[in-house]
Amino acid sequence: MMRAAKYYGKEDVRVEQVPIPQPGPALALVEIEWCGICGSDLHEFITGPVGIPKPGFPHPLTNETLPIIWGHEFCGTIKSVPPGINLKVGQAVAIDPRLICGTCGPCNNHADHGCHKLGFMGVSGRGGGFSEFVAVEPSMIHPLPKDMPLEYGAILEPLAVANHAVKMAGNLPWDNSTVLILGSGPVGIALILCLKAYGVRRIIVSEPTMKRRQQVEDIADTVINPMTDEVEGTCRVTTEGQGVDVVFDCAGVPQALNQAFRAIKVHGMYVNVAIWEKQFEIPFGDFMWKHITVLPSMAYNAEDFREVVKMVAEGQLVGYENIVTARISLEDIASEGLWELIRNKDQHIKILVTPKSHLLH
Amino acid sequence: MMRAAKYYGKEDVRVEQVPIPQPGPALALVEIEWCGICGSDLHEFITGPVGIPKPGFPHPLTNETLPIIWGHEFCGTIKSVPPGINLKVGQAVAIDPRLICGTCGPCNNHADHGCHKLGFMGVSGRGGGFSEFVAVEPSMIHPLPKDMPLEYGAILEPLAVANHAVKMAGNLPWDNSTVLILGSGPVGIALILCLKAYGVRRIIVSEPTMKRRQQVEDIADTVINPMTDEVEGTCRVTTEGQGVDVVFDCAGVPQALNQAFRAIKVHGMYVNVAIWEKQFEIPFGDFMWKHITVLPSMAYNAEDFREVVKMVAEGQLVGYENIVTARISLEDIASEGLWELIRNKDQHIKILVTPKSHLLH
Repeated sequence: MMRAAKYYGKEDVRVEQVPIPQPGPALALVEIEWCGICGSDLHEFITGPVGIPKPGFPHPLTNETLPIIWGHEFCGTIKSVPPGINLKVGQAVAIDPRLICGTCGPCNNHADHGCHKLGFMGVSGRGGGFSEFVAVEPSMIHPLPKDMPLEYGAILEPLAVANHAVKMAGNLPWDNSTVLILGSGPVGIALILCLKAYGVRRIIVSEPTMKRRQQVEDIADTVINPMTDEVEGTCRVTTEGQGVDVVFDCAGVPQALNQAFRAIKVHGMYVNVAIWEKQFEIPFGDFMWKHITVLPSMAYNAEDFREVVKMVAEGQLVGYENIVTARISLEDIASEGLWELIRNKDQHIKILVTPKSHLLH
Repeated sequence: MMRAAKYYGKEDVRVEQVPIPQPGPALALVEIEWCGICGSDLHEFITGPVGIPKPGFPHPLTNETLPIIWGHEFCGTIKSVPPGINLKVGQAVAIDPRLICGTCGPCNNHADHGCHKLGFMGVSGRGGGFSEFVAVEPSMIHPLPKDMPLEYGAILEPLAVANHAVKMAGNLPWDNSTVLILGSGPVGIALILCLKAYGVRRIIVSEPTMKRRQQVEDIADTVINPMTDEVEGTCRVTTEGQGVDVVFDCAGVPQALNQAFRAIKVHGMYVNVAIWEKQFEIPFGDFMWKHITVLPSMAYNAEDFREVVKMVAEGQLVGYENIVTARISLEDIASEGLWELIRNKDQHIKILVTPKSHLLH
């Protein structure tokens, strides 16, 4: 048996004894060291179930409903591996947690982030990262770059989210572009790191809370408080009056979106990476008169994940360690993890959870 | 002096005597024959002023405010022309009514539909089509194809709107794409004609009123009533379950938009051509999980206009004559034009207005 944190519903997560997953002949068994708490996990805890399958509505790929073993940003070491697979027992790895059908149009077209049945381990079933072991399809396992401390394997997933968002915006002349990021939570910071790797030199971050502004002061070019500073004005000064080329929304707040649309240049772009709990309403006048393209960025595909591993290995994602702001044990996931993020969200970027409490000392 | 219909405000249009515009040394004088009533004119009449400059807020290019001479979809004949311009007195022409600054970034980048000061004759000032004469910049004058009856010159503008919308969607494999059009008013029909010219073979039109459905039955492939028929179901049957590639929204109605988002395929596209009086709210789940690109299509540029003239000349816009459903005199613009469109909108596609009442007999 092993310990696992299972999601039962709104504000209800329970650490229980469950069977260790059996990898069978095709899967690898991964011993988990760390798993990050995602913003989407927090949404599930506060208002869910949203994406986690409710009773009566099992996920089409797993056939599971809640309670499910939770957590999808995880890393660990190989415990066992099928013959013929190029992975070694004890090797440090991160997991691409996506569940894809592999047979639909998008899957066959190198766009498996659009899989008709897309799911995630730790959300849709098949085990998850807030536990001791998972059985994983070997193709979804990424060995960590050799200089990367194992715990940071858990932030490759949010970095892949950011990388996908940058690529959604397309092949822009990044070194000559100005970008506005709304919200400097985990994905906002991951975006700053990725955009710098893509050569962007002018990054403006709009973030209402002081602590989160301080956390990005050294890596963004301009950090403003939208409650007191002029978002549009700042963006126009930075761009000789033209407005910013791209906005990445990692906030999901109507007021921030409206400010952003005023700050975008004619023919500019708005990319949503946030989960919106409120109505997703686009300011019609700016949208039409400035011909603004509105794009969603949801998850990532296999290539996005591989690329961030490579970017870390090549030293391009400078400062990624700063994303992690706390480490807690699996037993404390509710009190020190989820409730802590609700009560003191601004004190944190990413909280990592481990089932191995000796790693905390 | 000449007669002109001037827009004074909501439900207030007046036919008055005004001075004939003086073309000076740089402009051509055009004697107007026909001018169409645009959906945006109807919006201005019912709920305006919206885009027509209010007192105290003159348009930056014209410095005018209401009352302005109304009407921007017009054609006529050349009355006088500056020396050295390749136009002849008496020649049949249509007018690109846009007013552009010619100096901003978009203007210098072949994207003058994004001009920072974009305006329109007949909306922003400098005269308009609901009158007897206009003075026009020669570069905005398009000679009609030789076989095109003059009155249809007035529908080149809405055809340019449609052409721009198709081009906004990009270089799709049109002959293998399925398109859903919401609303078969003037722009919806213009879109059907343009899409057929681009080679689209599967066009589904969703339109709630019977008369408008009948008007497109011969030119669309499938015409459905969204109040009684299954929009998503119809689209999926037509596309072997995948959903449509592109939606063009010519309705601006929340319920229709929601139906459309359910009917779009993964990685599909939604192009808005409508004027929204209600909140422009995007269904968040479909937008994100299906990775749907949301694009605005606003007006057109010089190339879009030239292209539709060429498409008419080459016989590609088959059936464009059917867009015109009534012809009235300038004096009757309120009672037989605007109020008629409010009371019996479904009986009409495009109403043309002429200052030359002998043309009506």
